[in-house]
Amino acid sequence: MKNLLDIYSRKKKDVAAIERELEESVYSDHTMLRETSLHLLKAGGKRIRPVFVLLSGEFGAYKLETMKHIAIPLELIHMATLVHDDVIDDAHTRRGQLTVRSKWDNRVAMYTGDYILAKALGVVTKIANPTVHQIMSKAMVEMCIGEMEQIRFFFNSEQTVRDYLLRIKRKTALLIAISCQLGAMASEAPDWISSKLYTFGYNVGMTFQIRDDILDLCGTEKQIGKPPGSDIKQGNITLPVLFALQDPALKPALLQELARIQQHDGQTDISRFLDMIRSSGGVERASALSQKYIQRAISALEGLPDIRAKKDLVEIAYFIGNRSY
Amino acid sequence: MKNLLDIYSRKKKDVAAIERELEESVYSDHTMLRETSLHLLKAGGKRIRPVFVLLSGEFGAYKLETMKHIAIPLELIHMATLVHDDVIDDAHTRRGQLTVRSKWDNRVAMYTGDYILAKALGVVTKIANPTVHQIMSKAMVEMCIGEMEQIRFFFNSEQTVRDYLLRIKRKTALLIAISCQLGAMASEAPDWISSKLYTFGYNVGMTFQIRDDILDLCGTEKQIGKPPGSDIKQGNITLPVLFALQDPALKPALLQELARIQQHDGQTDISRFLDMIRSSGGVERASALSQKYIQRAISALEGLPDIRAKKDLVEIAYFIGNRSY
Repeated sequence: MKNLLDIYSRKKKDVAAIERELEESVYSDHTMLRETSLHLLKAGGKRIRPVFVLLSGEFGAYKLETMKHIAIPLELIHMATLVHDDVIDDAHTRRGQLTVRSKWDNRVAMYTGDYILAKALGVVTKIANPTVHQIMSKAMVEMCIGEMEQIRFFFNSEQTVRDYLLRIKRKTALLIAISCQLGAMASEAPDWISSKLYTFGYNVGMTFQIRDDILDLCGTEKQIGKPPGSDIKQGNITLPVLFALQDPALKPALLQELARIQQHDGQTDISRFLDMIRSSGGVERASALSQKYIQRAISALEGLPDIRAKKDLVEIAYFIGNRSY
Repeated sequence: MKNLLDIYSRKKKDVAAIERELEESVYSDHTMLRETSLHLLKAGGKRIRPVFVLLSGEFGAYKLETMKHIAIPLELIHMATLVHDDVIDDAHTRRGQLTVRSKWDNRVAMYTGDYILAKALGVVTKIANPTVHQIMSKAMVEMCIGEMEQIRFFFNSEQTVRDYLLRIKRKTALLIAISCQLGAMASEAPDWISSKLYTFGYNVGMTFQIRDDILDLCGTEKQIGKPPGSDIKQGNITLPVLFALQDPALKPALLQELARIQQHDGQTDISRFLDMIRSSGGVERASALSQKYIQRAISALEGLPDIRAKKDLVEIAYFIGNRSY
């Protein structure tokens, strides 16, 4: 299994150029905003959205300049949602680093998110094609709906797997889908190609979030950069839990645990809950579904020209399906 | 003194059309987002930004369709900042209505703000001119900086009048300035006209915020739709207070009151503080400065063609300089 850096190595120079411009794009004469934004940037991240933009762009007339104007706003939108989510989640660490809300405060985190969003829009203005703008703003609307849905379903054990899947589609998969779609579109690849890449990105995004949700339940703090079980502490019932709840032998005890965690507003020991989920079949079933999405992602690439980027996309898809960090 | 409705009456039909499209623009299939957004819209507001767009548009080739695509996103950006500010300010009422954060909760309010912002961007995509997009995104960046500055200066009695003025420029005046500028620009008025209108809007905006800050200290709950003194409770030191602090006879007692309010995190009786400010010369000096901005606003209109819109702008400027709600 290659790691992400190996897969990215061919695009190393272009990824580095985007990284530099990401920094420049959030630059501010305002000390605190500069610090909070750079803190977020430096905390890293996989830069999956920019890489998908770059690779998808190779299906058309690849120009780094054009790719930048797509990749940077998409990554900034992603960062803005992260910092707002941390406010909502009362998160203290992300990727092993203090969150903005924790290092500064909730108010600073909210305006940092707004600021990064505004900066993202500043970069988008460099793209002439109004379709690109429309696709981005629609995705942002859906992301907000996804976040609201997540809140609405907190501690709701009656929700269905379908509720969960629709939510993570909005919250995560759409932005990854349009990263692929817009990368191709901006480099003027034909529509059928950007449409296949959208489907690829959507399915990879679904896998990505399911893996994330599994890791939150099964990973170690070192692996995931935050204490495990953060999701359930805030009431976010994820796929492995939903599958575990389908086991009649387990359901009553799980519901009891869920009620107890909710009663304590997440401020309680959740090791018993985690043990129950880990030893249930829920994790395996969630893993199996995530593998199904990977297969669908790879199928979506069928028929695309056999360029190097296609091979890279397949490798990244497999990597994401098996990642443990 | 005419009231705003009288001044608006000539544009009544177009204002009503914009009001309808504002509602349509935040429509969502998502029940909660639809409710929170409409709650915000229905709570009203003076719709000063849309009206300035419309009137400024009359200096060029006025087309309602074009004006809508400028007025709606500007009002939505304004609304998004209001709902985020309410989160920060722990505000319970605005314009006599419960705030979103109070009727729902902070998390809902934050995502409602993000959602309205995303919807604003969706409308902006209908404008082809990239300069318009750039002006809007730059203004949004400045607004975030203004909000951060406000937080940074909470309870800081060392700040200067200049700090205050720069902050309200960013927080309030800029968005009003670009409402005028973009209204003219979108209807293809010559640059010198949109530039004069920008200056007009900037100065009206400064007056607007100074009046707002005076009203927060001197108005009744009925007039201002929220308890007086909300600013100082959260630590926001406004112009009348800064002027009052310049009175050596008053300063020690005022500093003591400020320290006491800060110690209690704003959760204390502030009537003594309000009395001190009201009986100081600070309110009159702030009023005088706000009148100066009105004069500058009106001077900026000199040389513009003598159309009806010019007369209306002057009337609105005077109205804003004297408003008591």
